[in-house]
Amino acid sequence: MIVIGIDPGTASTGFGVLEGSRSQLRLLAAGVIETRAGAPAERRLAEIHARVGDLLDEHGADAIAIEELYFGANVRTAFAVGQARGVVLLAAGQRCVPSRSYTPQQVKGAVCGNGRAGKDQVARMVARLLGLSGPPSSDHAADAMAVAICDLNRAPFARALAGVDPLGASIRASSLPRRRRITGAQT
Amino acid sequence: MIVIGIDPGTASTGFGVLEGSRSQLRLLAAGVIETRAGAPAERRLAEIHARVGDLLDEHGADAIAIEELYFGANVRTAFAVGQARGVVLLAAGQRCVPSRSYTPQQVKGAVCGNGRAGKDQVARMVARLLGLSGPPSSDHAADAMAVAICDLNRAPFARALAGVDPLGASIRASSLPRRRRITGAQT
Repeated sequence: MIVIGIDPGTASTGFGVLEGSRSQLRLLAAGVIETRAGAPAERRLAEIHARVGDLLDEHGADAIAIEELYFGANVRTAFAVGQARGVVLLAAGQRCVPSRSYTPQQVKGAVCGNGRAGKDQVARMVARLLGLSGPPSSDHAADAMAVAICDLNRAPFARALAGVDPLGASIRASSLPRRRRITGAQT
Repeated sequence: MIVIGIDPGTASTGFGVLEGSRSQLRLLAAGVIETRAGAPAERRLAEIHARVGDLLDEHGADAIAIEELYFGANVRTAFAVGQARGVVLLAAGQRCVPSRSYTPQQVKGAVCGNGRAGKDQVARMVARLLGLSGPPSSDHAADAMAVAICDLNRAPFARALAGVDPLGASIRASSLPRRRRITGAQT
């Protein structure tokens, strides 16, 4: 199963493409989609939409995983992140690829075993779980990989609860039980 | 000049397609794009994106006009509206159609001459300016027509300030002078 984790933003959208099979995780690609500061919002959103679409097509992704808004975000941030998130969800929806959302606490819990872990701790655990030589250089890419790890860790439950869903229904995992089943590729 | 005003929302996106020539305004189409409650967000956003794209193509629109976030919106609302707004801007960006944003105060000021006018007053003035037999039945459609009226009232200044812009740069009109030049089609 291939999942693309996304950390959306108009200026920088992090992505991490992960393959999960049995208890193994493999990183296929990761990086940051950066758009030109000063360009009109609609052009920046078009760039993000096109690049995410390319990733979905190139990797034949089964799902997109994306974070919910974090607690404490302000209205302006929420509006801007919402716009970028909208075009990411759209790229998935146009391909009938399901999108699954997780709270930051769920992501941190799945990666670090602690829903209140700091950014550094998440980046170190992402590197360890994916067998990287060191933490990702970009926070956006690290966050994107983390949400994909969270999804691959939880997806079996989400699918079981949702039943067969040929239309790719969005699954809210907030009520799902936790399961810690990740084994790093380096082990 | 043909401008599509949009009042974005995941459940209901209002639209109003207006033609402005000299001091006359003409309503070409208006309505609400409604998406199915309970459908996954990515499918609802795909529906909005496709329908707005159809409107742009069908009417050969020169610009999209859309409201900025209103003061006092909460974070959840901002996030949800941001997502819908993102796919609307995208539909414009993919066609190199410029998008222009206005604050609610600018829209109310342009339509009613009072930046603090109420919804009923805006709807009545929209009907009067466009020569309709009565206020639009949908608040979303009325708001969309109002932002298009605002744009057609202000666009000459925005274009003059921005200069020639073949790439369709987004114009922030917040610093533009007010001008009241609208004449209702019924006069």
